[in-house]
Amino acid sequence: MKIRSEHQCFDGTLTYYAHESHFNQCEMRFSAFIPHSATTANKVPVLTYLSGLTCTEENFTVKAGAYRMASALKLAIIAPDTSPRGEDVPDGVDGNVGKGAGFYVDAIEAPWNKHYHMYSYITEELYTLTAQHFPVDNNRHGIFGHSMGGHGALMIYLKNPGKYKSVSAFAPICSATKSPTAQNAFRAYFGNNQALFEAHDATLLMLALGEGRNRPEILIDQGLADTFLPNLSPDLFRQACAKAGQKLRLREHPGYDHGYFFIQSFIDDHIKHHAKLL
Amino acid sequence: MKIRSEHQCFDGTLTYYAHESHFNQCEMRFSAFIPHSATTANKVPVLTYLSGLTCTEENFTVKAGAYRMASALKLAIIAPDTSPRGEDVPDGVDGNVGKGAGFYVDAIEAPWNKHYHMYSYITEELYTLTAQHFPVDNNRHGIFGHSMGGHGALMIYLKNPGKYKSVSAFAPICSATKSPTAQNAFRAYFGNNQALFEAHDATLLMLALGEGRNRPEILIDQGLADTFLPNLSPDLFRQACAKAGQKLRLREHPGYDHGYFFIQSFIDDHIKHHAKLL
Repeated sequence: MKIRSEHQCFDGTLTYYAHESHFNQCEMRFSAFIPHSATTANKVPVLTYLSGLTCTEENFTVKAGAYRMASALKLAIIAPDTSPRGEDVPDGVDGNVGKGAGFYVDAIEAPWNKHYHMYSYITEELYTLTAQHFPVDNNRHGIFGHSMGGHGALMIYLKNPGKYKSVSAFAPICSATKSPTAQNAFRAYFGNNQALFEAHDATLLMLALGEGRNRPEILIDQGLADTFLPNLSPDLFRQACAKAGQKLRLREHPGYDHGYFFIQSFIDDHIKHHAKLL
Repeated sequence: MKIRSEHQCFDGTLTYYAHESHFNQCEMRFSAFIPHSATTANKVPVLTYLSGLTCTEENFTVKAGAYRMASALKLAIIAPDTSPRGEDVPDGVDGNVGKGAGFYVDAIEAPWNKHYHMYSYITEELYTLTAQHFPVDNNRHGIFGHSMGGHGALMIYLKNPGKYKSVSAFAPICSATKSPTAQNAFRAYFGNNQALFEAHDATLLMLALGEGRNRPEILIDQGLADTFLPNLSPDLFRQACAKAGQKLRLREHPGYDHGYFFIQSFIDDHIKHHAKLL
């Protein structure tokens, strides 16, 4: 792992890393915030944060304002890039498929199937590497994200019961099969394989999970002035949670839009949500 | 005034504006955060924030994490761009003179003297416009800034006794006449007029102000891993304050650098400092 840069922030260290990814077959970048309170003798819980379309490993670090509360509550946060990168990596034309738009799935269709394995990268490679390199306790690992990354967080959480102990999301794509943007990406990555479409839809995964009243609460914040709302379907996820007996705190905020000014306004509550469950 | 964009954030509204500037003879941009608690019947104190070299009206808004505490303590924050802009506006070659590098002075030398009047823009035009357009109380107006903008905040505060009621700075250029970067800019804007150099040096202004033990405390935060330190001279300002009987809280933070991860780590204390004095 190469250190690209390092900054002190809120009694912790924020470091940007680069490393060769086995699953994505390219150099991947991510950031890690480790509070100074974390030591090998006193490991801390860790959150993986998944960003939205067009984002890199840097948007969350700079714009979310998460590290004050993470430091206070002694949580580490890992924030990866949103896709494979590099000259050898194929790209789309409209920003909704390809670089910056990995959608946290493993592509099976050419030309995407060589590099676009964000699902395995997040759930296996980065997950393992995190515990190897940092003083964090992977048994207390939560996941959260925004928009495409909110889809990623909910979908990955639901597909890996017990691996991630807590989940939350900002304005997530709650049902990828109902989102025109996600559908467009899935057609590229999965071809006509509808079973794979459905296997990566958070709402369908929640319905498939069935009854489970003792599962931890899920927190979702949604702005009501969000122009991306037609892609998000929070009501479908709410209905699925109601059917499954899943506790859901879905908060809808008048006037707030889809961006990081919305995220920073409610980030503290997400950090607290995870700290309580971890 | 044109609204460029508007976002809800922490129970307030952050708006990016553009307007034709009388002093700078070009369109200028700034951002305004107005907490919802501010009304014409209940005006709130207001802070002007001055950014550093290469910044625009956007760095502070996105990176500083200031609005949580500003909303809680009911303060408005105005953050202008750092220079005149536009195709007609002359620019330098190295980023230290010209666009993004107005240094908050009124240039007298060609070609800068047509547009580069940031001192008058901040202290007269933006100051007046703020009170005209927003529910803020200009009798409770504070000023703060970072690096070049820390120089701007200290210098403008000291040149206008009583106009700004509070001041603070992050890693400010404390003595422009001892800063190679500021000297380079001053040579462009002031030519050989050494009296103007000295009249815009915060340390010399403090010494010139003389004894005044009842003046409000000044807050400065400085990172000790700041690579820009040779331009900053915090010790000279500390000595000048000691001579003048000026209360100064100069905090030096091991490991912190010059950037916004440093600023966001201590921004709350600055907002509280101003709220207490205003």
